[in-house]
Amino acid sequence: MLAKGVTKCKTQDIARSSGRLLIWNMDIIEFFEANAGKWLSQRTHHHLAMSRSESGKAEVQIEPLTASHPAVIQLCQHGNLDTDRALCGVRITWNGMMAAETRQQTGTSLLVALQSGNDRQSGQLLQQNGRKDLLTGRYTLGSDEVLTLITEAESWYLEERLWLAGPNLRLRTSLLQQAGGFQSAAFCSEIRIGGGQTPAQSQPEVATTP
Amino acid sequence: MLAKGVTKCKTQDIARSSGRLLIWNMDIIEFFEANAGKWLSQRTHHHLAMSRSESGKAEVQIEPLTASHPAVIQLCQHGNLDTDRALCGVRITWNGMMAAETRQQTGTSLLVALQSGNDRQSGQLLQQNGRKDLLTGRYTLGSDEVLTLITEAESWYLEERLWLAGPNLRLRTSLLQQAGGFQSAAFCSEIRIGGGQTPAQSQPEVATTP
Repeated sequence: MLAKGVTKCKTQDIARSSGRLLIWNMDIIEFFEANAGKWLSQRTHHHLAMSRSESGKAEVQIEPLTASHPAVIQLCQHGNLDTDRALCGVRITWNGMMAAETRQQTGTSLLVALQSGNDRQSGQLLQQNGRKDLLTGRYTLGSDEVLTLITEAESWYLEERLWLAGPNLRLRTSLLQQAGGFQSAAFCSEIRIGGGQTPAQSQPEVATTP
Repeated sequence: MLAKGVTKCKTQDIARSSGRLLIWNMDIIEFFEANAGKWLSQRTHHHLAMSRSESGKAEVQIEPLTASHPAVIQLCQHGNLDTDRALCGVRITWNGMMAAETRQQTGTSLLVALQSGNDRQSGQLLQQNGRKDLLTGRYTLGSDEVLTLITEAESWYLEERLWLAGPNLRLRTSLLQQAGGFQSAAFCSEIRIGGGQTPAQSQPEVATTP
């Protein structure tokens, strides 16, 4: 419920009313909630130096988790980070294969978004893929509602961008840069085939203008 | 040259110094300049409903044009728009083919960005592909330096997103929605093979804070 005399505005629109300024942007919790469900994913890899591509398909299940979910708390503790900073998490499970493969690949990944400043549009990211080492990275949700995820390790750097192009259509790109200059870009177009949920109501930020 | 006591900041960083607030974002002119050159493009189309993909390659030449370039002025006049609103233009020429085709496809496209408000991060877009009808659309350069271009006609809607993922690496996605619900997504990864130029110096916006 908005205070009297305050107008709610969507991304980048700014309303001035009775000396109050209010800006509303989708935050990371709402973004993960809007991505919930089962998705049919078409994926293409471009191996940049070789100018060669390969394609595949997968089913991807996305399950948003609250900040108090045991898996979220456990991952924070694993990273020696204050659990109070956790905003939300997401568990991603996939099952599919590239055209050149002969058997299904399955996997699971757990991501936790942590509050780093005053907003919920950018912050620290914890990620664990299966039983592999814990990765730390960062996320930024742009004014265009594109989520950028950056994770890196000693020998590689991964930049992912993902957004909802429609209520049940998700697009994703990733760019992997490895030691020795090897680069690979990937693109996924994903259609939701079940299990979507309505995003929670946003909590707009309110600031006072002069 | 910045005024004394004012700090220049990159995207989304805000500096307060001696009561002055300064925000620097790449603008549309700098974006097109940073995209200048000859690019080797790998392209993949995903036909969403059929869950089928096809790939191809092309050479793409991108030539930024100033607001006073005859081609920019001519396109504004063609659209009955005030030439003073033109910020810049870009001429894109391509030559390539998809895997299933047997001969090269060539084409040219002219885009003009027009000032619509106080900033140079979003505004109106004029586009002409070859000798086809003039299209009007809009552009938005996000805080994450992703350029979103939207053009539409009676029977289709096209949303393109493009960004520089490195000094000589460009990624592009497009989503085409046609009458009858047909959707097609495309992804291009492009490596610059010549002709880049240094972006012009930015003109930061300066605002006074209380």
